[in-house]
Amino acid sequence: MFDTAASGNRADTSKHGRKSNLLRKVFPISGWVSNYRREDLIGDLMAGLIVAIMLVPQSMAYAMLAGLPPQVGLYASILPLIIYAVFGSSRVLAVGPVAMVSLLTLSGIGAIAQAGTAEFVALALILALMTGVIQLLMGIARLGFLVNFLSHPVLVGFTSAAALVIGSSQLKHIFGIDVARTEHPYQLFINVANNLPETNLIALGVGAGSIFVLLYFKYFFKRNLLGLGFGSGIADTLSKAGALLVVLVSTLIAWGIALDSGFGLKIVGEIPAGLPPLTFPSLQTSQIIALIPIALIISLVGFMESISIATTLASRRRQKIDPNQELIALGAANVGASVTGGYPVTGGLSRSVVNFSAGANTNLSSIVTAVLIALTVLLFTPLFYYLPRATLAAIVIVAVASLFDLKSFRHIWAYSKTDAAALLATFLAVLAFNIEIGIGVGVATALVLHLYRTSKPHVAVVGRVGETEHFRNVLRHEVNTCPDACAVRIDESLYFANTRELENTLLSAVADNPELKNIILICSAVNFIDSSALDTLERAVDELRDAGVNLYLAEVKGPVMDRLKAIGFVDKFGKENIFLSCHQAFQFLGCEKER
Amino acid sequence: MFDTAASGNRADTSKHGRKSNLLRKVFPISGWVSNYRREDLIGDLMAGLIVAIMLVPQSMAYAMLAGLPPQVGLYASILPLIIYAVFGSSRVLAVGPVAMVSLLTLSGIGAIAQAGTAEFVALALILALMTGVIQLLMGIARLGFLVNFLSHPVLVGFTSAAALVIGSSQLKHIFGIDVARTEHPYQLFINVANNLPETNLIALGVGAGSIFVLLYFKYFFKRNLLGLGFGSGIADTLSKAGALLVVLVSTLIAWGIALDSGFGLKIVGEIPAGLPPLTFPSLQTSQIIALIPIALIISLVGFMESISIATTLASRRRQKIDPNQELIALGAANVGASVTGGYPVTGGLSRSVVNFSAGANTNLSSIVTAVLIALTVLLFTPLFYYLPRATLAAIVIVAVASLFDLKSFRHIWAYSKTDAAALLATFLAVLAFNIEIGIGVGVATALVLHLYRTSKPHVAVVGRVGETEHFRNVLRHEVNTCPDACAVRIDESLYFANTRELENTLLSAVADNPELKNIILICSAVNFIDSSALDTLERAVDELRDAGVNLYLAEVKGPVMDRLKAIGFVDKFGKENIFLSCHQAFQFLGCEKER
Repeated sequence: MFDTAASGNRADTSKHGRKSNLLRKVFPISGWVSNYRREDLIGDLMAGLIVAIMLVPQSMAYAMLAGLPPQVGLYASILPLIIYAVFGSSRVLAVGPVAMVSLLTLSGIGAIAQAGTAEFVALALILALMTGVIQLLMGIARLGFLVNFLSHPVLVGFTSAAALVIGSSQLKHIFGIDVARTEHPYQLFINVANNLPETNLIALGVGAGSIFVLLYFKYFFKRNLLGLGFGSGIADTLSKAGALLVVLVSTLIAWGIALDSGFGLKIVGEIPAGLPPLTFPSLQTSQIIALIPIALIISLVGFMESISIATTLASRRRQKIDPNQELIALGAANVGASVTGGYPVTGGLSRSVVNFSAGANTNLSSIVTAVLIALTVLLFTPLFYYLPRATLAAIVIVAVASLFDLKSFRHIWAYSKTDAAALLATFLAVLAFNIEIGIGVGVATALVLHLYRTSKPHVAVVGRVGETEHFRNVLRHEVNTCPDACAVRIDESLYFANTRELENTLLSAVADNPELKNIILICSAVNFIDSSALDTLERAVDELRDAGVNLYLAEVKGPVMDRLKAIGFVDKFGKENIFLSCHQAFQFLGCEKER
Repeated sequence: MFDTAASGNRADTSKHGRKSNLLRKVFPISGWVSNYRREDLIGDLMAGLIVAIMLVPQSMAYAMLAGLPPQVGLYASILPLIIYAVFGSSRVLAVGPVAMVSLLTLSGIGAIAQAGTAEFVALALILALMTGVIQLLMGIARLGFLVNFLSHPVLVGFTSAAALVIGSSQLKHIFGIDVARTEHPYQLFINVANNLPETNLIALGVGAGSIFVLLYFKYFFKRNLLGLGFGSGIADTLSKAGALLVVLVSTLIAWGIALDSGFGLKIVGEIPAGLPPLTFPSLQTSQIIALIPIALIISLVGFMESISIATTLASRRRQKIDPNQELIALGAANVGASVTGGYPVTGGLSRSVVNFSAGANTNLSSIVTAVLIALTVLLFTPLFYYLPRATLAAIVIVAVASLFDLKSFRHIWAYSKTDAAALLATFLAVLAFNIEIGIGVGVATALVLHLYRTSKPHVAVVGRVGETEHFRNVLRHEVNTCPDACAVRIDESLYFANTRELENTLLSAVADNPELKNIILICSAVNFIDSSALDTLERAVDELRDAGVNLYLAEVKGPVMDRLKAIGFVDKFGKENIFLSCHQAFQFLGCEKER
């Protein structure tokens, strides 16, 4: 999938990496702009051009997916790209409108305003500003770790459901029918099915034809070009021009039809020419409060998408990504979008891969893309007047189809049924309710399942293997044990979710065996003990003593021991009751002699 | 604090423990009723009597704390106790109204009805029914593990704040002033302070006097009695009668004053005589929905309080508690409360300890208590007519004072600043907003901090100690390393919260060292790998290969290895790249020869 040939030619970037002063940290652009090398120029120009060719139709398509006029997508592809080039720590991330964030924008704003109205467009500016501010604050407060809440199964479930929602939202354009906005995504399928008799055959022809051509370009065209003897660079560039081609051809067709203006084929219509207007969102408290949930989700999901692709691409060239700097760069880019008539943006997956494979060496390629988009809005918007909406819908559908990730679902299902449950819960909640509830359900499910898993840690009663110093699970191995002592190994860090199980384990051992006098708790797998577990341990010592049983610890890790010492637990518990190894504890308890 | 002398005389209960058939599991009462021993009777009768002496004034006081008429507390102390005796797996848990659940009841119902009204009383029945059903369902679904969400710091913060809230809610009775209900707890202090000039000196005298007597009984009376030569049993019983004494004396005082009926001392007034009425809550959907959050919190908090004390007391006699059976028993008790004019109940901490220390051997003591309370409502309610409210307030204040847990806060602060932060967040949120929000904030804070902690696992680059097979942290020990290989030990299970850090660790090692060709990931502390981490590992292998680096695994645990094999990771990754020990990996990579 990736062009690995490009990864060899930039070993020298580590030179930049060492020059890490504050300037470089706050403005990563200073890392490459001052010692820009002429030989990087061709790659940057070519990559910038190819991304621009992809981005012009994509940005309009995504804007319309978000319920916004097409020029908003173009506006969001100029200043944000330049801002990211200044602040971003990735050299190849291509920022701009993406499908997922567009869907989130529609879902969030659609709940409080009618798509297509001026209010809707104004709210998109507010949303971009809020997203930008949240990302900036998160970056400054170093809260990048919050994306850890989004587990892989939750993301797969969420993305797959979103792909279905996005795809189905475009079907009305492909079939040229009117479909009422629905409260819950799953109702959309029903509405589309009900209205199928109204299908506009011209729209369907344009839409289906566009999908066919796009799929051909995506999967076969490059191979055919190479087969015809074209150079790899040319083939690469031409194969990215599928969207541009369907835009041109379908616009010509629509223009031809419109000469006798009939057939009801929906077209984009007038796009104002000229650079983006300077805008400042007018803020109302009630609107801000209503948009907070979606702004938080866009901040996190957008950041997640960006950081994943940036990390992957950077690793190919042994470069580093700073997650908190990325948050700041994306935040600044979103603020930029909000003051130039745009809407929320983030780093796009496929676009960044294209930028990388096309040979982008520095963020100059993004600046080139931005300049080309600016030229487009200055000069070429009249050309898009007859662009059919069905064509843009086809571009969106082909782009999101690969987000529906059945393969990952199968893989996760095979590996862990609980993780698969989190995936399914997210997937179904997105379709049944909406995106925000879906993500909430997914995160909550993943957390509960994680707590459930760690609340029942693997616990093994162990015994001595022969005459060795090795101790193994009595259920799995032939081992020697003590009649009045029980050695228990707990395979988990001790924290609030499993303190109750720890207590149960200890007290059950005592209740089940009236002769028991000693318990050795083996802590070789305990990486930390939080204060809930400390409290439980302290109580367990007292409770066991009341029941006439002594507790001993063995194999406590260094960092854990340091903290137990500092809090005075070791003094109170008795240093003589803590053994370096289970072997020493067995020796101390005289287990050898008993048999 | 506990009377440990009682713990020796019941070693034979393990006989019951072995007879564990289904009947015994569903009706734990069958475990002791069929072979009840005459020598247990004295202890059960005495304990039942002492608990009843405590419970009569306490149950009235807690009912009034909950905004309910005093008889509701008495009603909640009859049938629920008998039901718990049938279903409960603890032999000594004393069920009934408790301070915390009463406060939660006031907080939850107070938001939708006026305290003291008939609607409020009706809602208490609904709440008891909902709590009962939730606990029953949780028990049947074996969801007892959900209490693991309530970490020790959150509980300490919550309980301490609740103690302040409860205490301050009683101040108006002590001072005999009127204080308007406030939306947020902290405002109560201000309102009380503002109204202090209106203080009723008679009320203050009765209230402060009661507090003084109660504190004397709680901390000094038993010691004094023993000093005077009384037997331990008598001293114990008499020292529990403090509440009864202040009730009697203050009632007499109020009766004397009321002969010329003046001074405005507030009294309990008429309590209807007779057994609890059979009630069935009339359910309205809107009320049920409004009460769901508080019913969930009461279910969990009540269960938590019960299970903690039941486990502690059971361990003294080597008995076992079944958490899910406890949920069923408490749930049934709450349903019982809802059909006999009561309100939500749970196992009380101090009351159960008294029951245990007074020699309760079986749940017969609870049945004795219930019968005595029933006699009280049948015969003695007219005696409480002149009982001053200030006295009941004093009983509540003394009971909850020990819940304010400064010692635990200091301990947790010293042990872990992050855990202390969760405690403080809970404490302040309860005072600033309300109980429900406080618990929510606490649980969320604890979870986020836990994720934060495990998202930054301890990672050590290790090297060989001398010529041994031991490998230690390069930062802490003088060790030998390889120039082109890096051995990394990650001290945490790999799951969604730390996969990003895992990826960063591996890719940073590569970016920082251009000569690096091999990475050995040591998994000795990895107890499980979830599907997010599996996905990251799979990607990391590819990304590292693209960067010209080989990844090896060492010391993978058995259960983890089993799952990696089952999913096909081992075959794809290459069995030859997984080593039993770090030593073998170093040998394979020829590190020895390099130096």
